[in-house]
Amino acid sequence: MHYNLALIGFGNVARSLARLLIRKQDLLKSKHDVTFSFTGISTGRHGFAVNPKGLDIQKALELAESGKSISPLSTFQVDDSLAVIQHSSANVMFENSPVNTQTGQPALDHIRMGLDLGMHAITANKGPVVHGYRELTALAESKGKTFRFESAVLGGAPVFSVMREAFPLAELESFKGILNATTNVILSRMESGETYEQALKYAQSIGLAETDPTNDVDGWDAAIKVAALVTVLWDTPMTPQQVNPTGIRGITSEMIAKAKADGKRYKLVCSAEKVDGKINVSVSPQLVDASSSLYGMMNSSTGVTFRTDVVLDYSIVLSEKPGMTGGPAETAYGLFADFANIVK
Amino acid sequence: MHYNLALIGFGNVARSLARLLIRKQDLLKSKHDVTFSFTGISTGRHGFAVNPKGLDIQKALELAESGKSISPLSTFQVDDSLAVIQHSSANVMFENSPVNTQTGQPALDHIRMGLDLGMHAITANKGPVVHGYRELTALAESKGKTFRFESAVLGGAPVFSVMREAFPLAELESFKGILNATTNVILSRMESGETYEQALKYAQSIGLAETDPTNDVDGWDAAIKVAALVTVLWDTPMTPQQVNPTGIRGITSEMIAKAKADGKRYKLVCSAEKVDGKINVSVSPQLVDASSSLYGMMNSSTGVTFRTDVVLDYSIVLSEKPGMTGGPAETAYGLFADFANIVK
Repeated sequence: MHYNLALIGFGNVARSLARLLIRKQDLLKSKHDVTFSFTGISTGRHGFAVNPKGLDIQKALELAESGKSISPLSTFQVDDSLAVIQHSSANVMFENSPVNTQTGQPALDHIRMGLDLGMHAITANKGPVVHGYRELTALAESKGKTFRFESAVLGGAPVFSVMREAFPLAELESFKGILNATTNVILSRMESGETYEQALKYAQSIGLAETDPTNDVDGWDAAIKVAALVTVLWDTPMTPQQVNPTGIRGITSEMIAKAKADGKRYKLVCSAEKVDGKINVSVSPQLVDASSSLYGMMNSSTGVTFRTDVVLDYSIVLSEKPGMTGGPAETAYGLFADFANIVK
Repeated sequence: MHYNLALIGFGNVARSLARLLIRKQDLLKSKHDVTFSFTGISTGRHGFAVNPKGLDIQKALELAESGKSISPLSTFQVDDSLAVIQHSSANVMFENSPVNTQTGQPALDHIRMGLDLGMHAITANKGPVVHGYRELTALAESKGKTFRFESAVLGGAPVFSVMREAFPLAELESFKGILNATTNVILSRMESGETYEQALKYAQSIGLAETDPTNDVDGWDAAIKVAALVTVLWDTPMTPQQVNPTGIRGITSEMIAKAKADGKRYKLVCSAEKVDGKINVSVSPQLVDASSSLYGMMNSSTGVTFRTDVVLDYSIVLSEKPGMTGGPAETAYGLFADFANIVK
């Protein structure tokens, strides 16, 4: 089976995905008899290209990464993402364009159009999950297609697929975890004696925190991840506003030093619990001691513990390994895994 | 779709499974339109029963648990497990009879016959995985059926299904973990000042360690789990003998006190690594410090960290939750999950 792929958004994540697909193409062929070509690419600043017979992906990567337009690769004129989707003849659309997390746009419109045209839709964006999970899942089902978003939480490491495939008919009672790496790095480094400003600067220097760190340090990134988990795992719509997070700006060096002296640590704890059909959620800095599974999660480690009706508390923890510190390459794997699971 | 189920082995795990299936029967019906009945039961000391139209499972549970024979429930004469399998008209066989871990028998013969007769085969036994994974998987495939064993490692918590379903086309480089709860409880309690004998007695009192603790404390239970993971995840046959474990009997209270003073702990560490196509494995007590993900895993917590080519180090950790301490009920969920994934 041959798949035409459209890349809507061609930033770090999408380009990592393209490279990963190329690296794994022999495995896809040998294990699942699957081949693919890229038939549509939409970029923010480097133009748009469509070729239903297959674009030269290496050339597209080179052009975009040297700041040039990919438009010369196109076999006919396309001027925006919707036109790329429409004319790409794609079977699978990867939606990774910059998203407004308050509205889920323009990802929502892209995914709607892709599904309407009979494509599978895969995204790393949290926005369309939080703002469109039910609608997009129903639309996909009505077309016999799939809407997937493994990379939306914990980078590209499996969380949604674990709960979906490995916990069949289990009842989720609660979850608790650390879902934002930036704040965990900042709190870890403040414990080692750095000021908030120094720790933030470090997180920015390794590409983890953005220039404007508001989204991370005020808890909004964690909140949208909690909202996405609640929305999907309990099939109950929830917005980041409903999560109403408290960030880490109020945590001073003095508070951290005092906690350390008491054998405790501040963590930006994300939690959700279903009690009598009602879901209570929280994102806020909390003191944890060594008996907590969150205590040992330092620096950029993230993770989540799921409590179900069927097994002991089940934690998934991601931690640094030599040669990989998270980021686009890892996020790309979640997209790839969604693709591999759809086509296998 | 209606499934006839055969329970080969009717001990704590199989009886927990029967109760879990009954508890989840409405979900199976509503989500997957699946119904089931029990058409064959084979016990070690309470006889054998077959009824292709469905046995009274509540009655069977009562009889077995009050020490009586289930044979009166049978619609015709069956005298051993193979006869139960043969006459059960089952679509799915759950193999949970006592197994010889050195040979995988009689589980291997049971599963062979079940698959030959066109049944799916599901087991919590490690023996048939270590001694028959390739053969049984190939036999199942040739019949269009499935051989599953989620409960063989980490109780019934998902491990195999996570690697199979949630890490598609990823390359496993290594794994490392604590796979035996008994030894972890003993080492944890020795750190709190108990002697080996006191700690062992405690582990026995909570039903974790057996009267003869050899299998746990000498590392054989951990070794067969390592062998099962290697056999399946790398599709490379390995026996517990090849793992050649070192147990915890050589770890004295003095060694543990010295380690504690240095901020370290002894853990029975299970590890495997694939280097240049060769798999190196180890089960032995090792000193770990607070920087290790194993350091915080105390008492009956178990877990494993997988290193792959695609994401950061990915750990699965199981820890106690209120009202559940592992054991048969949890193992039963792994069997149930295998069933649910087959029939969904």
